Amino acid sequence: MLYVIGIGPGGERSMTAECRAALDLADVIVGYTVYVELIRPLYPNARTLDTAMTQEVERVRSALELAERGETVALVCSGDSGVYGMAGLALELAPEFPSVTIEVVPGVTAALSGAAALGAPLTHDFAVISLSDLLTPWELIAKRLRCAAEGDFAIALYNPSSAKRRDYLARACGILMEHKSPETPCGVVRNIGRIGETSALMTLAELRSTAVDMFTTVFIGNSQTRVISGKLVTPRGYRV
Amino acid sequence: MLYVIGIGPGGERSMTAECRAALDLADVIVGYTVYVELIRPLYPNARTLDTAMTQEVERVRSALELAERGETVALVCSGDSGVYGMAGLALELAPEFPSVTIEVVPGVTAALSGAAALGAPLTHDFAVISLSDLLTPWELIAKRLRCAAEGDFAIALYNPSSAKRRDYLARACGILMEHKSPETPCGVVRNIGRIGETSALMTLAELRSTAVDMFTTVFIGNSQTRVISGKLVTPRGYRV
Repeated sequence: MLYVIGIGPGGERSMTAECRAALDLADVIVGYTVYVELIRPLYPNARTLDTAMTQEVERVRSALELAERGETVALVCSGDSGVYGMAGLALELAPEFPSVTIEVVPGVTAALSGAAALGAPLTHDFAVISLSDLLTPWELIAKRLRCAAEGDFAIALYNPSSAKRRDYLARACGILMEHKSPETPCGVVRNIGRIGETSALMTLAELRSTAVDMFTTVFIGNSQTRVISGKLVTPRGYRV
Repeated sequence: MLYVIGIGPGGERSMTAECRAALDLADVIVGYTVYVELIRPLYPNARTLDTAMTQEVERVRSALELAERGETVALVCSGDSGVYGMAGLALELAPEFPSVTIEVVPGVTAALSGAAALGAPLTHDFAVISLSDLLTPWELIAKRLRCAAEGDFAIALYNPSSAKRRDYLARACGILMEHKSPETPCGVVRNIGRIGETSALMTLAELRSTAVDMFTTVFIGNSQTRVISGKLVTPRGYRV
């Protein structure tokens, strides 16, 4: 049995009961080192198998092999296991492991937890886009940014930066400004739900020259988004 | 104190620890009747205030008024409180209630829980669009559908149908097929996380002639989405 679990942004508070139940059942917890360490305080005696970033295929294959041998395996992902998480990869590899039952346990992805920290920027239609070009050509990312801006979507950006892609957020903002006002309210949240969570609001023009890191999720409003009493709010359209 | 809480799709299993902690603290639970009844088994003695659908402004104002009088109020929403939920409305009304602290507690929205039920259709960039035109002109909905399809996003559709809008999903599929193949793998999930959950997979062409109701969430793949061992999977791009 393999549970592919979204643990939410950080500690125990953001885990669902279903996530905890699957972790309670697990013989072994498999995941990226940082996420396994987030869970360890809750399961100090658990058997764990942690692998480095970029070893996703090996990690998921190891989890499936353990499950094939009859173990109950919890493969943990931050946020939701189905949003840039390991659920897709586990299901892609599933035909090689026909005896293994796979259950995807959803969790609170950074678009939702980050939005709550800032206010309610995603209350109307929204798009979620990763700026990482490790697995996706930049041309496709740029096209999606352009289409999301043209459709006046509120947008959550994942993986907005890394050591090798320091200017990607600036490039993304430039593309978005082809269709969105430079005054569009935006926000960034770093270390969502973890110790040292920080957030800030700014305009799209200001976001363009803001440095962020890979622990940050970025929110860009639609044409109706406003800052109300210090919170980023995209109205749904009720008459208030 | 007002907690605007996303309770996830259904019962206790999909609630986060943070959601439960806020419900435990609440003097009164406010919400749409159906969601208050979902929670009642967990809090059989709780004071509740439930209001009908379409009374959202009155409901949120009542919650803020109770909080202004010093009560700890839990305003409950299904899924996530920030995705087509009450968090935006509460923050819009907040300036009228300056003494009230508002905390948005995120939850597992139907895009995530429905995706997990079907497999992993949202593992790459995705768009979330509501087909309800109660608060949004159809022209804007149609534009967003067109832009999301042009950008090759995977898509989750909320509120795909109602008594007055029986043909909206068919119209939406027609728009999507301007840019997406009629063979695009799709899925529908009804009563996510509740008793009687059902799901089905089909092509976009088949989805066009499928009848759904307002308890259904609809998923449309991107150009890479496939059905693997009966699951709907959008690969992220790992070499497997």
